[in-house]
Amino acid sequence: MTRVAFVGLGAMGLPMATNLLGKGFAVTGYDLSLKALDALESAGGRRAGSAAEAAAEADVLVLMVVNAAQAEAVLFAGGALKALRPDGVVALMATCPPAAVEAIEERVRETGRRLIDAPVSGGVAGAKAATLTIMAAGPRDTFDAAKPVFDALGDKVFHVGERPGQGAMVKTVNQLLCGVHIAVVAEAFALATKVGVDLKILLEIMSGSAASSWMLRDRGPRMLEAEPEVTSAVDIFVKDLGIVLDAGRDTKAALPLAAAAHQMFLAASGRGDGTADDSQVIRSYFALNGSK
Amino acid sequence: MTRVAFVGLGAMGLPMATNLLGKGFAVTGYDLSLKALDALESAGGRRAGSAAEAAAEADVLVLMVVNAAQAEAVLFAGGALKALRPDGVVALMATCPPAAVEAIEERVRETGRRLIDAPVSGGVAGAKAATLTIMAAGPRDTFDAAKPVFDALGDKVFHVGERPGQGAMVKTVNQLLCGVHIAVVAEAFALATKVGVDLKILLEIMSGSAASSWMLRDRGPRMLEAEPEVTSAVDIFVKDLGIVLDAGRDTKAALPLAAAAHQMFLAASGRGDGTADDSQVIRSYFALNGSK
Repeated sequence: MTRVAFVGLGAMGLPMATNLLGKGFAVTGYDLSLKALDALESAGGRRAGSAAEAAAEADVLVLMVVNAAQAEAVLFAGGALKALRPDGVVALMATCPPAAVEAIEERVRETGRRLIDAPVSGGVAGAKAATLTIMAAGPRDTFDAAKPVFDALGDKVFHVGERPGQGAMVKTVNQLLCGVHIAVVAEAFALATKVGVDLKILLEIMSGSAASSWMLRDRGPRMLEAEPEVTSAVDIFVKDLGIVLDAGRDTKAALPLAAAAHQMFLAASGRGDGTADDSQVIRSYFALNGSK
Repeated sequence: MTRVAFVGLGAMGLPMATNLLGKGFAVTGYDLSLKALDALESAGGRRAGSAAEAAAEADVLVLMVVNAAQAEAVLFAGGALKALRPDGVVALMATCPPAAVEAIEERVRETGRRLIDAPVSGGVAGAKAATLTIMAAGPRDTFDAAKPVFDALGDKVFHVGERPGQGAMVKTVNQLLCGVHIAVVAEAFALATKVGVDLKILLEIMSGSAASSWMLRDRGPRMLEAEPEVTSAVDIFVKDLGIVLDAGRDTKAALPLAAAAHQMFLAASGRGDGTADDSQVIRSYFALNGSK
């Protein structure tokens, strides 16, 4: 039986850890939130007083923290890496810039331990239902060592490459597409508004045509609402398209569409809409073009 | 029984006219191509020696020509409008800029005749199968007069607004989304290439995630081919995104994503790839970013 240390028991991490418990893994968790630790215990897991304590004697250390800086803090300053047994595997499942993942992996490797770069997509719903998409990169044997854990968390587990950083890049590319797809729906709706086209009919037509996207069908209806429920905030794409553009800088790739889309999310956040639903990037277009 | 004059018997027009014949309409057609006129006759239609001759005594004059300039030439210089009976309806089904449609409608209205602005989407396959999407704008009674014709040509017939030009705008918005969706897939793939991610696996993951779009699933596989079959050429999007940006100018709407995408198609055409499959806009990214 694989022993898992799980650090980061937030909206994604807690249901993921719970799924591991449900599938027979021994899970020791750590989070700054005592409430999260209580919830893990209720689900049958063990609580640790620190990330290092959680990592001690684990076979796989899952990091589902907020960003690369937190992952570094947990692993290095926090001592979790040292506490991990020498043949243990670090599964970095948080969304991080590809270059940051490469740097972290190098430091992990220097200690003789292994890292698998394994970001996820599918959101909280996918975390709960164990239907996450997992985009893992690292040497095949490292991937194989972590695969039982991944299979308990998602139903679309891909080995995307041999080099850590490649998983983060696939996730980055995923966010590039998602962010631009949201922004372009807003751009299209803002143009249609100029000549008084009924946006509900427009959305119905576009949803069934070659112009359709997953985001058009999901975010489009919420763009027509003045104050939609927040399913994912504007500031998430301020961050994620920021990671996309950082990846472009690190690899020296010009990304004109992602850059333009990022500006619209950034402006929305700057006007005070950072916590609004990300569909409300359309307000940037209305502000820019003076309509509605 | 509605008598239809059909001008423009190309790849789209001929199957559309054939569907009208199959559904019992009397169709008189005109095209510069004698071969197209032969084909119409074989399908049971009548050939005319000019657009004006086709229009004479028709209830509905369908224009399925290449662009607004051809529509104007047929209607005005070509005399088709004058030949049309006073209560006849012009169904402008070609893809035209919204402002051009408004200008044409004004001149049609001055003669006492009516115009319905009714561009289509669905391509040659939709034209053949009578499954086109038809985005019609004009006063309700004009729409009602042309609706039997539309119902014979498509299965998704929408009355998108009362003002001619609004249909063209819906089609314009459709092309905005389609063009940006193709370009952003190219941008995403070009970034992934920088770190050696396997694009086939990437495409498989993106096709099943929130990053998916109709265009990603259709054009994505062709982006991975060096010389894919041409289903729609780069130059079509040079033209159509040009119409999008013209619509933005006419209505004073800033369209940063459409503008950036247009540049990439334009550059592809400028390098000699105008007749290549539009998926090959990815070559602009490879040229720009120096990869592959």
